[in-house]
Amino acid sequence: MEKQKISTAVINRLPAYLRLFSELEEKGVAHVSSNEISEMMGTTASQVRQDFSNFGGFGRQGYGYDVKYLCEQMQSILGLDKTYNLVIVGGGKIGQALANYGGYDKLGFYIKAVFDKEVWHVRVPSHIDVFDTEKLADYTAKNKIDIAIICTPKEVALETAKKIKDCGIKAIWNFASQEIKLDGVHVENVHLNESLFLLTYKINSEQN
Amino acid sequence: MEKQKISTAVINRLPAYLRLFSELEEKGVAHVSSNEISEMMGTTASQVRQDFSNFGGFGRQGYGYDVKYLCEQMQSILGLDKTYNLVIVGGGKIGQALANYGGYDKLGFYIKAVFDKEVWHVRVPSHIDVFDTEKLADYTAKNKIDIAIICTPKEVALETAKKIKDCGIKAIWNFASQEIKLDGVHVENVHLNESLFLLTYKINSEQN
Repeated sequence: MEKQKISTAVINRLPAYLRLFSELEEKGVAHVSSNEISEMMGTTASQVRQDFSNFGGFGRQGYGYDVKYLCEQMQSILGLDKTYNLVIVGGGKIGQALANYGGYDKLGFYIKAVFDKEVWHVRVPSHIDVFDTEKLADYTAKNKIDIAIICTPKEVALETAKKIKDCGIKAIWNFASQEIKLDGVHVENVHLNESLFLLTYKINSEQN
Repeated sequence: MEKQKISTAVINRLPAYLRLFSELEEKGVAHVSSNEISEMMGTTASQVRQDFSNFGGFGRQGYGYDVKYLCEQMQSILGLDKTYNLVIVGGGKIGQALANYGGYDKLGFYIKAVFDKEVWHVRVPSHIDVFDTEKLADYTAKNKIDIAIICTPKEVALETAKKIKDCGIKAIWNFASQEIKLDGVHVENVHLNESLFLLTYKINSEQN
Protein backbone atom coordinates (compact mmCIF):
# COMPACT_ATOMS: atom_id res chain seq x y z
CA MET A 1 0.00 0.00 0.00
CA GLU A 2 1.35 3.42 -1.00
CA LYS A 3 2.20 5.70 1.90
CA GLN A 4 0.32 8.96 1.73
CA LYS A 5 -0.70 11.64 4.19
CA ILE A 6 -4.08 10.67 5.52
CA SER A 7 -6.18 13.33 7.26
CA THR A 8 -6.87 13.15 10.99
CA ALA A 9 -10.60 13.16 10.29
CA VAL A 10 -10.28 9.99 8.21
CA ILE A 11 -8.02 8.31 10.78
CA ASN A 12 -10.46 9.11 13.58
CA ARG A 13 -13.22 7.35 11.66
CA LEU A 14 -11.27 4.09 11.22
CA PRO A 15 -12.22 2.49 14.56
CA ALA A 16 -15.90 3.19 13.87
CA TYR A 17 -15.56 1.53 10.46
CA LEU A 18 -13.97 -1.50 12.12
CA ARG A 19 -16.79 -1.68 14.66
CA LEU A 20 -19.40 -1.54 11.89
CA PHE A 21 -17.66 -4.17 9.73
CA SER A 22 -17.25 -6.49 12.74
CA GLU A 23 -20.94 -6.15 13.58
CA LEU A 24 -21.89 -6.94 9.99
CA GLU A 25 -19.59 -9.96 9.94
CA GLU A 26 -21.06 -11.24 13.22
CA LYS A 27 -24.53 -10.92 11.71
CA GLY A 28 -23.40 -13.01 8.76
CA VAL A 29 -23.63 -10.21 6.19
CA ALA A 30 -21.35 -11.10 3.24
CA HIS A 31 -21.49 -7.92 1.15
CA VAL A 32 -22.25 -4.29 1.79
CA SER A 33 -22.53 -1.25 -0.49
CA SER A 34 -21.02 2.17 0.15
CA ASN A 35 -24.60 3.45 0.37
CA GLU A 36 -25.43 1.01 3.15
CA ILE A 37 -22.17 1.79 4.96
CA SER A 38 -22.83 5.53 4.71
CA GLU A 39 -26.32 5.14 6.16
CA MET A 40 -25.03 3.14 9.13
CA MET A 41 -22.17 5.60 9.67
CA GLY A 42 -24.38 8.68 9.32
CA THR A 43 -22.35 10.04 6.41
CA THR A 44 -22.51 9.98 2.58
CA ALA A 45 -21.58 7.23 0.12
CA SER A 46 -19.06 9.50 -1.57
CA GLN A 47 -17.42 10.19 1.80
CA VAL A 48 -17.14 6.43 2.40
CA ARG A 49 -15.58 5.82 -1.01
CA GLN A 50 -13.24 8.77 -0.49
CA ASP A 51 -12.19 7.42 2.94
CA PHE A 52 -11.59 3.97 1.47
CA SER A 53 -9.56 5.39 -1.43
CA ASN A 54 -6.86 6.32 1.11
CA PHE A 55 -6.29 2.59 1.55
CA GLY A 56 -6.54 1.37 -2.01
CA GLY A 57 -10.35 1.29 -2.19
CA PHE A 58 -10.96 -2.18 -0.66
CA GLY A 59 -11.87 -3.74 -4.02
CA ARG A 60 -15.51 -2.81 -4.47
CA GLN A 61 -17.33 -5.12 -6.89
CA GLY A 62 -20.73 -4.79 -8.53
CA TYR A 63 -22.39 -6.31 -5.46
CA GLY A 64 -20.50 -4.09 -3.02
CA TYR A 65 -17.63 -4.73 -0.65
CA ASP A 66 -16.73 -8.12 0.82
CA VAL A 67 -17.40 -7.73 4.57
CA LYS A 68 -14.84 -10.29 5.70
CA TYR A 69 -12.18 -8.60 3.57
CA LEU A 70 -13.15 -5.17 4.95
CA CYS A 71 -12.73 -6.51 8.49
CA GLU A 72 -9.33 -8.02 7.79
CA GLN A 73 -8.11 -4.90 6.02
CA MET A 74 -9.30 -2.54 8.75
CA GLN A 75 -7.76 -4.77 11.45
CA SER A 76 -4.49 -4.70 9.57
CA ILE A 77 -4.60 -0.92 8.98
CA LEU A 78 -5.22 -0.35 12.70
CA GLY A 79 -2.36 -2.69 13.60
CA LEU A 80 -4.71 -5.15 15.30
CA ASP A 81 -3.14 -8.13 13.53
CA LYS A 82 -0.22 -7.74 15.95
CA THR A 83 0.15 -8.00 19.73
CA TYR A 84 1.26 -5.31 22.16
CA ASN A 85 2.86 -5.25 25.58
CA LEU A 86 1.48 -2.64 27.97
CA VAL A 87 2.29 -1.23 31.38
CA ILE A 88 -0.01 0.77 33.62
CA VAL A 89 1.50 3.71 35.50
CA GLY A 90 -0.66 4.58 38.48
CA GLY A 91 -2.25 1.71 40.38
CA GLY A 92 -5.23 3.55 41.84
CA LYS A 93 -8.86 2.70 41.14
CA ILE A 94 -8.75 3.24 37.39
CA GLY A 95 -5.40 1.49 36.97
CA GLN A 96 -6.56 -1.50 39.01
CA ALA A 97 -9.88 -1.62 37.15
CA LEU A 98 -8.06 -1.81 33.81
CA ALA A 99 -5.64 -4.45 35.12
CA ASN A 100 -8.45 -6.51 36.61
CA TYR A 101 -10.76 -6.17 33.61
CA GLY A 102 -8.98 -8.89 31.70
CA GLY A 103 -10.70 -8.25 28.38
CA TYR A 104 -7.64 -6.92 26.57
CA ASP A 105 -5.68 -10.17 26.30
CA LYS A 106 -8.02 -11.58 23.70
CA LEU A 107 -7.52 -8.42 21.59
CA GLY A 108 -3.75 -8.94 21.73
CA PHE A 109 -3.04 -6.27 24.35
CA TYR A 110 -1.03 -7.79 27.20
CA ILE A 111 -0.84 -5.80 30.42
CA LYS A 112 2.50 -6.88 31.87
CA ALA A 113 3.00 -4.67 34.93
CA VAL A 114 1.55 -1.92 37.08
CA PHE A 115 3.78 0.82 38.49
CA ASP A 116 2.82 2.78 41.59
CA LYS A 117 4.49 4.71 44.38
CA GLU A 118 2.65 2.57 46.93
CA VAL A 119 2.85 -0.96 45.60
CA TRP A 120 1.21 -2.47 48.69
CA HIS A 121 -2.09 -0.77 47.74
CA VAL A 122 -2.24 -2.36 44.30
CA ARG A 123 -4.40 -5.48 43.89
CA VAL A 124 -4.15 -7.06 40.45
CA PRO A 125 -4.18 -10.59 39.00
CA SER A 126 -1.06 -12.58 39.85
CA HIS A 127 0.21 -12.73 36.24
CA ILE A 128 0.62 -8.93 36.30
CA ASP A 129 3.72 -7.65 38.12
CA VAL A 130 3.58 -4.68 40.49
CA PHE A 131 6.64 -2.44 40.88
CA ASP A 132 7.56 0.86 42.41
CA THR A 133 7.31 3.67 39.86
CA GLU A 134 11.05 4.23 40.23
CA LYS A 135 11.66 0.87 38.54
CA LEU A 136 9.96 1.93 35.31
CA ALA A 137 13.15 2.78 33.38
CA ASP A 138 14.86 -0.43 34.55
CA TYR A 139 11.86 -2.53 33.60
CA THR A 140 11.38 -1.03 30.16
CA ALA A 141 15.10 -1.43 29.43
CA LYS A 142 14.70 -5.17 29.97
CA ASN A 143 11.19 -5.66 28.56
CA LYS A 144 9.80 -4.46 25.24
CA ILE A 145 6.83 -2.26 26.09
CA ASP A 146 4.74 -0.75 23.31
CA ILE A 147 2.12 1.27 25.16
CA ALA A 148 1.97 2.88 28.61
CA ILE A 149 -1.39 3.58 30.22
CA ILE A 150 -1.33 6.64 32.50
CA CYS A 151 -3.73 6.35 35.45
CA THR A 152 -2.03 8.77 37.83
CA PRO A 153 -3.59 11.77 39.55
CA LYS A 154 -3.80 14.70 37.12
CA GLU A 155 -1.12 16.66 38.98
CA VAL A 156 1.63 14.22 38.00
CA ALA A 157 0.26 13.08 34.65
CA LEU A 158 2.49 15.26 32.48
CA GLU A 159 5.73 14.46 34.34
CA THR A 160 4.75 10.78 34.16
CA ALA A 161 4.29 11.12 30.41
CA LYS A 162 7.75 12.65 30.07
CA LYS A 163 9.30 9.78 32.06
CA ILE A 164 7.49 7.27 29.86
CA LYS A 165 8.80 9.02 26.76
CA ASP A 166 12.34 8.99 28.21
CA CYS A 167 11.99 5.22 28.61
CA GLY A 168 11.56 4.97 24.85
CA ILE A 169 7.89 3.98 24.91
CA LYS A 170 6.23 5.32 21.77
CA ALA A 171 2.56 5.44 22.77
CA ILE A 172 0.54 6.64 25.75
CA TRP A 173 -3.11 5.90 26.52
CA ASN A 174 -3.96 8.60 29.01
CA PHE A 175 -6.77 8.12 31.55
CA ALA A 176 -5.65 10.96 33.85
CA SER A 177 -8.05 13.88 33.78
CA GLN A 178 -5.29 16.09 32.42
CA GLU A 179 -4.94 16.49 28.66
CA ILE A 180 -1.42 15.50 27.58
CA LYS A 181 0.36 16.66 24.43
CA LEU A 182 3.99 15.68 24.04
CA ASP A 183 6.19 15.73 20.95
CA GLY A 184 7.78 12.45 19.94
CA VAL A 185 5.22 10.19 21.55
CA HIS A 186 1.73 9.23 20.39
CA VAL A 187 -0.87 10.17 22.99
CA GLU A 188 -4.56 9.38 23.10
CA ASN A 189 -6.44 11.15 25.87
CA VAL A 190 -9.50 9.28 27.16
CA HIS A 191 -12.41 11.58 27.96
CA LEU A 192 -14.86 9.12 29.42
CA ASN A 193 -17.05 11.76 31.02
CA GLU A 194 -17.69 13.59 27.79
CA SER A 195 -20.28 11.05 26.71
CA LEU A 196 -21.87 11.26 30.17
CA PHE A 197 -22.11 15.04 29.80
CA LEU A 198 -23.77 14.60 26.40
CA LEU A 199 -26.41 12.53 28.19
CA THR A 200 -27.08 15.23 30.76
CA TYR A 201 -27.26 17.78 27.95
CA LYS A 202 -29.88 15.67 26.23
CA ILE A 203 -31.82 15.06 29.44
CA ASN A 204 -32.02 18.81 29.93
CA SER A 205 -32.77 19.84 26.38
CA GLU A 206 -35.89 19.13 24.38
CA GLN A 207 -33.89 17.45 21.66
CA ASN A 208 -33.63 13.79 20.92
CA MET B 1 -32.52 31.31 26.11
CA GLU B 2 -34.53 30.69 22.95
CA LYS B 3 -35.03 27.05 22.07
CA GLN B 4 -33.65 26.23 18.65
CA LYS B 5 -32.52 23.13 16.84
CA ILE B 6 -28.80 22.75 17.49
CA SER B 7 -26.79 20.45 15.24
CA THR B 8 -25.34 17.20 16.56
CA ALA B 9 -21.85 18.36 15.55
CA VAL B 10 -22.17 21.43 17.79
CA ILE B 11 -23.58 19.41 20.69
CA ASN B 12 -20.75 16.88 20.42
CA ARG B 13 -18.22 19.70 20.79
CA LEU B 14 -19.74 21.07 24.02
CA PRO B 15 -17.89 18.75 26.44
CA ALA B 16 -14.58 19.64 24.79
CA TYR B 17 -15.39 23.34 25.19
CA LEU B 18 -16.15 22.76 28.87
CA ARG B 19 -12.87 20.90 29.33
CA LEU B 20 -10.96 23.73 27.69
CA PHE B 21 -12.71 26.47 29.70
CA SER B 22 -12.15 24.54 32.95
CA GLU B 23 -8.44 24.15 32.18
CA LEU B 24 -8.15 27.87 31.44
CA GLU B 25 -9.98 28.75 34.66
CA GLU B 26 -7.68 26.45 36.67
CA LYS B 27 -4.69 28.18 35.13
CA GLY B 28 -6.10 31.53 36.25
CA VAL B 29 -6.79 32.83 32.74
CA ALA B 30 -9.48 35.55 33.00
CA HIS B 31 -10.25 36.28 29.35
CA VAL B 32 -9.90 34.40 26.08
CA SER B 33 -10.53 35.37 22.47
CA SER B 34 -12.32 33.28 19.86
CA ASN B 35 -9.00 33.10 18.03
CA GLU B 36 -7.28 31.58 21.07
CA ILE B 37 -10.17 29.18 21.66
CA SER B 38 -10.10 28.08 18.02
CA GLU B 39 -6.37 27.38 18.15
CA MET B 40 -6.73 25.25 21.28
CA MET B 41 -9.72 23.41 19.82
CA GLY B 42 -8.10 22.87 16.43
CA THR B 43 -10.85 24.75 14.59
CA THR B 44 -11.49 28.29 13.28
CA ALA B 45 -12.51 31.45 15.12
CA SER B 46 -15.60 31.78 12.97
CA GLN B 47 -16.58 28.22 13.87
CA VAL B 48 -16.22 29.06 17.56
CA ARG B 49 -18.36 32.20 17.26
CA GLN B 50 -20.93 30.26 15.24
CA ASP B 51 -21.03 27.49 17.87
CA PHE B 52 -21.45 30.07 20.65
CA SER B 53 -24.20 31.89 18.75
CA ASN B 54 -26.41 28.84 19.37
CA PHE B 55 -26.36 29.78 23.03
CA GLY B 56 -26.67 33.54 22.84
CA GLY B 57 -23.01 34.25 22.07
CA PHE B 58 -21.63 34.26 25.65
CA GLY B 59 -21.22 38.05 25.73
CA ARG B 60 -17.92 38.61 23.94
CA GLN B 61 -16.34 41.97 24.84
CA GLY B 62 -13.42 43.82 23.26
CA TYR B 63 -10.98 41.84 25.38
CA GLY B 64 -12.61 38.50 24.58
CA TYR B 65 -14.80 36.16 26.60
CA ASP B 66 -14.88 35.98 30.39
CA VAL B 67 -13.51 32.50 31.19
CA LYS B 68 -15.40 32.09 34.47
CA TYR B 69 -18.66 33.02 32.73
CA LEU B 70 -17.91 30.58 29.88
CA CYS B 71 -17.39 27.81 32.44
CA GLU B 72 -20.61 28.55 34.28
CA GLN B 73 -22.59 28.81 31.07
CA MET B 74 -21.22 25.58 29.63
CA GLN B 75 -21.82 23.74 32.91
CA SER B 76 -25.40 24.97 32.88
CA ILE B 77 -25.95 24.09 29.19
CA LEU B 78 -24.67 20.56 29.83
CA GLY B 79 -26.92 20.25 32.89
CA LEU B 80 -23.94 19.95 35.25
CA ASP B 81 -25.39 22.49 37.67
CA LYS B 82 -27.78 19.72 38.76
CA THR B 83 -27.32 16.31 40.40
CA TYR B 84 -28.28 12.92 39.01
CA ASN B 85 -29.14 9.54 40.48
CA LEU B 86 -27.69 6.56 38.65
CA VAL B 87 -27.97 2.79 38.72
CA ILE B 88 -25.57 0.29 37.20
CA VAL B 89 -27.06 -2.75 35.48
CA GLY B 90 -24.48 -5.51 35.26
CA GLY B 91 -22.15 -5.93 38.22
CA GLY B 92 -19.21 -7.55 36.44
CA LYS B 93 -15.72 -6.10 36.22
CA ILE B 94 -16.68 -2.89 34.43
CA GLY B 95 -19.76 -2.31 36.59
CA GLN B 96 -17.80 -2.87 39.79
CA ALA B 97 -14.95 -0.66 38.57
CA LEU B 98 -17.36 2.21 37.96
CA ALA B 99 -19.07 1.68 41.33
CA ASN B 100 -15.75 1.49 43.14
CA TYR B 101 -14.17 4.41 41.31
CA GLY B 102 -15.92 6.96 43.50
CA GLY B 103 -15.02 9.99 41.41
CA TYR B 104 -18.53 10.72 40.17
CA ASP B 105 -20.02 11.93 43.45
CA LYS B 106 -18.11 15.17 43.34
CA LEU B 107 -19.46 15.82 39.84
CA GLY B 108 -23.01 15.38 41.14
CA PHE B 109 -23.54 11.87 39.77
CA TYR B 110 -24.68 9.57 42.57
CA ILE B 111 -24.49 5.84 41.91
CA LYS B 112 -27.27 4.45 44.10
CA ALA B 113 -27.44 0.76 43.24
CA VAL B 114 -26.00 -2.06 41.18
CA PHE B 115 -28.25 -4.71 39.64
CA ASP B 116 -26.96 -8.15 38.71
CA LYS B 117 -28.29 -11.66 38.27
CA GLU B 118 -25.68 -12.94 40.73
CA VAL B 119 -25.65 -10.40 43.53
CA TRP B 120 -23.20 -12.42 45.64
CA HIS B 121 -20.45 -11.75 43.09
CA VAL B 122 -20.79 -7.99 43.31
CA ARG B 123 -18.32 -6.13 45.56
CA VAL B 124 -19.04 -2.41 45.85
CA PRO B 125 -18.82 0.26 48.58
CA SER B 126 -21.39 -0.19 51.34
CA HIS B 127 -23.34 2.98 50.50
CA ILE B 128 -24.26 1.43 47.14
CA ASP B 129 -27.06 -1.14 47.22
CA VAL B 130 -26.88 -4.41 45.31
CA PHE B 131 -30.05 -6.04 44.03
CA ASP B 132 -31.13 -8.82 41.74
CA THR B 133 -31.79 -7.51 38.23
CA GLU B 134 -35.42 -8.60 38.61
CA LYS B 135 -35.89 -5.85 41.21
CA LEU B 136 -35.05 -3.05 38.77
CA ALA B 137 -38.65 -2.07 37.99
CA ASP B 138 -39.60 -2.14 41.68
CA TYR B 139 -36.60 -0.07 42.66
CA THR B 140 -37.06 2.58 39.99
CA ALA B 141 -40.75 2.88 40.85
CA LYS B 142 -39.73 3.87 44.39
CA ASN B 143 -36.54 5.83 43.63
CA LYS B 144 -36.06 8.60 41.08
CA ILE B 145 -33.30 7.40 38.77
CA ASP B 146 -32.07 9.65 35.97
CA ILE B 147 -29.44 7.55 34.24
CA ALA B 148 -28.81 3.80 33.94
CA ILE B 149 -25.33 2.52 33.16
CA ILE B 150 -25.35 -0.72 31.17
CA CYS B 151 -22.37 -2.98 31.96
CA THR B 152 -23.87 -6.30 30.93
CA PRO B 153 -22.45 -8.81 28.46
CA LYS B 154 -23.15 -7.67 24.91
CA GLU B 155 -25.64 -10.50 24.31
CA VAL B 156 -28.16 -9.04 26.77
CA ALA B 157 -27.36 -5.34 26.36
CA LEU B 158 -30.27 -4.50 24.07
CA GLU B 159 -32.91 -6.34 26.11
CA THR B 160 -31.49 -4.66 29.22
CA ALA B 161 -31.85 -1.28 27.51
CA LYS B 162 -35.49 -2.04 26.70
CA LYS B 163 -36.18 -2.97 30.34
CA ILE B 164 -34.52 0.25 31.49
CA LYS B 165 -36.68 2.23 29.09
CA ASP B 166 -39.81 0.43 30.34
CA CYS B 167 -38.85 1.54 33.87
CA GLY B 168 -39.17 5.14 32.68
CA ILE B 169 -35.46 5.97 32.86
CA LYS B 170 -34.68 8.55 30.21
CA ALA B 171 -30.95 8.09 29.68
CA ILE B 172 -28.54 5.18 29.21
CA TRP B 173 -24.75 5.27 29.41
CA ASN B 174 -23.79 2.07 27.61
CA PHE B 175 -20.48 0.32 28.35
CA ALA B 176 -21.50 -3.00 26.79
CA SER B 177 -19.61 -3.73 23.60
CA GLN B 178 -22.87 -3.70 21.67
CA GLU B 179 -24.04 -0.46 20.09
CA ILE B 180 -27.52 0.43 21.34
CA LYS B 181 -30.05 2.62 19.55
CA LEU B 182 -33.52 2.84 21.06
CA ASP B 183 -36.27 5.34 20.38
CA GLY B 184 -37.57 7.28 23.36
CA VAL B 185 -34.44 7.03 25.48
CA HIS B 186 -31.16 8.93 25.22
CA VAL B 187 -28.25 6.55 24.73
CA GLU B 188 -24.53 7.27 24.72
CA ASN B 189 -22.39 4.32 23.68
CA VAL B 190 -18.91 4.28 25.20
CA HIS B 191 -16.24 3.08 22.78
CA LEU B 192 -13.22 3.01 25.04
CA ASN B 193 -11.13 0.85 22.73
CA GLU B 194 -11.43 3.20 19.80
CA SER B 195 -8.78 5.51 21.21
CA LEU B 196 -6.56 2.49 21.90
CA PHE B 197 -6.93 1.44 18.27
CA LEU B 198 -5.96 4.94 17.14
CA LEU B 199 -2.74 4.47 19.11
CA THR B 200 -1.94 1.19 17.42
CA TYR B 201 -2.71 2.81 14.06
CA LYS B 202 -0.24 5.56 14.85
CA ILE B 203 2.39 3.13 16.13
CA ASN B 204 2.16 1.28 12.83
CA SER B 205 2.00 4.25 10.49
CA GLU B 206 4.71 6.77 9.79
CA GLN B 207 2.46 9.63 10.82
CA ASN B 208 2.64 11.65 13.98
